[in-house]
Amino acid sequence: MLTYNEYLSRVNDALARVEYPAEPRRLYEPIEYTIGLGGKRLRPVLAMMACHALGGNPDDVINVAVGIELFHNFTLIHDDVMDKADVRRGKPTVFRKWGATAAILSGDAAIGMAMRYVSRVDDAHLRKVLELINDTALGVYDGQQYDIDFEDRNDVTVDEYIHMIMLKTSVLLGCATKAGAIVADADEDVAQAMWRVGVNLGLAFQLQDDLLDVWGDEATFGKEIGGDIMNNKKTYLLINALNLAQGDLAAELNRWLNNDNAPRGEKVAAVTRIYEQLGLKQQSEQEIARYSALAKEALVDAGLNPVARAEFEQLIDRLTSRQY
Amino acid sequence: MLTYNEYLSRVNDALARVEYPAEPRRLYEPIEYTIGLGGKRLRPVLAMMACHALGGNPDDVINVAVGIELFHNFTLIHDDVMDKADVRRGKPTVFRKWGATAAILSGDAAIGMAMRYVSRVDDAHLRKVLELINDTALGVYDGQQYDIDFEDRNDVTVDEYIHMIMLKTSVLLGCATKAGAIVADADEDVAQAMWRVGVNLGLAFQLQDDLLDVWGDEATFGKEIGGDIMNNKKTYLLINALNLAQGDLAAELNRWLNNDNAPRGEKVAAVTRIYEQLGLKQQSEQEIARYSALAKEALVDAGLNPVARAEFEQLIDRLTSRQY
Repeated sequence: MLTYNEYLSRVNDALARVEYPAEPRRLYEPIEYTIGLGGKRLRPVLAMMACHALGGNPDDVINVAVGIELFHNFTLIHDDVMDKADVRRGKPTVFRKWGATAAILSGDAAIGMAMRYVSRVDDAHLRKVLELINDTALGVYDGQQYDIDFEDRNDVTVDEYIHMIMLKTSVLLGCATKAGAIVADADEDVAQAMWRVGVNLGLAFQLQDDLLDVWGDEATFGKEIGGDIMNNKKTYLLINALNLAQGDLAAELNRWLNNDNAPRGEKVAAVTRIYEQLGLKQQSEQEIARYSALAKEALVDAGLNPVARAEFEQLIDRLTSRQY
Repeated sequence: MLTYNEYLSRVNDALARVEYPAEPRRLYEPIEYTIGLGGKRLRPVLAMMACHALGGNPDDVINVAVGIELFHNFTLIHDDVMDKADVRRGKPTVFRKWGATAAILSGDAAIGMAMRYVSRVDDAHLRKVLELINDTALGVYDGQQYDIDFEDRNDVTVDEYIHMIMLKTSVLLGCATKAGAIVADADEDVAQAMWRVGVNLGLAFQLQDDLLDVWGDEATFGKEIGGDIMNNKKTYLLINALNLAQGDLAAELNRWLNNDNAPRGEKVAAVTRIYEQLGLKQQSEQEIARYSALAKEALVDAGLNPVARAEFEQLIDRLTSRQY
């Protein structure tokens, strides 16, 4: 096994070698821009790690890994149009920089490029990888649709929320780990265990993200704290709060949710206090720990050797204990 | 060979059997709605015809054909968001009926469904068909981008226009005919000849569409005449007119193009008269005949038997002599 940074370096090399057609410039420039914004490259690294951990050559899955990263970036481009988002990773979104039409069409082209890279996998694994990618893509769209549907509902259950983030976020991590397993010629049950590694890690990761938006440190987290609270975003915390708050606390929460003119500092502080009174910080941490443990159990199910298992465990711990 | 209507009937049966997931409803309903709007189903029929004409079983290409039709419908859904179009085939567009977000996300899901159907082709042809589809998809996006780029330019050449419609419209017809050839186990040069059949038919078809928008019969054409003229759409006719008109005629054309408040009847009649003075109706008809002839030559290159060739020739003649 290599270290995360060693896999990352190979992923970034491969991403730097992606050839964006010179023309039409306005179609490919936004894709190159989005990939250039960087990020942890978690998905492609996971694909390489999984392949290597199961005895495969990690370079055999590099094109699939690049395809998955292109697909992930397409989802960011289209999500930012749907959310009319201005900023992504501290820079203007494609939507803001080039407009909705460019973002829609460049996103489509990013899917096309993603499919081209994924399809470069060898013949022996092509069908399995394709089925995985196609199922995953539709899962991600289902998740995004549920996320949109939830905006108009005040009765979303915690189970519904977990199902939504599993689709919207986690299945693409599961896709990465499973694709690595497939290319390493792993048996179906091993590949499925690796899928659970990615999916449970994804759930822990997303809950951590919800938590950091409230109790994170702005410098470390990289974005302004309280954005979800200001947008009344149906996060794990808000959904739990809506389900758990009673009497005066419920009334206070609803007052903040319905107050469109609340000063940012006040609303964020007040809603954070409500979450704390309901014990939601601790509860979230417990859930993150639970999904991390499930991811680690799946590593055992996949029968990884001790070195590979330790490498994955460290990654899971690092990702789910990101600094506040 | 079967008749067009017999292939069409098989295509429509297959489209009726497409399973749209029940949930999330708002994601799949717009796709089902768009497919339900009907249409000539030209692309899937061409795929079946090409496969059959080259000795294959047309049912072997049916999933690819359904995938291509789903892909075509996705392009309509996204194009209508980009154009803010209200009406498609006499009904409200997905954009109008459900909004931009739904149209973006449902379009994405339609790509996902398309890829799933295309991927159902047998192992022996999977890689070739995938490469064809991926190249085609990126070509279509390139074409759409050029179409958008042309809106802001007044110096588009006829060659640039032909290149644009080849990408935006024709390569998907070429994809259909070539996919049929691939599944029929045709040699590469035969498959390539069948691609030229589809592409040249597509060019003739698109030029015919531009022509019908000016000289068509509303009842037969199914949409209001003069829409392209009212929108200053850079069609084959307008681009030629901008290149050919001199002196007073050029000045008159530019007056109409810059007159945002021109009454519909007057502007359509005046610009039509300019096109006629420049001989563009006849010139377009000649170009349509030239691309039809190229499509027919490609049928010879593909070495089709006389019966199959006659069936394709009839289809080409029918599509390129649609009623005014």
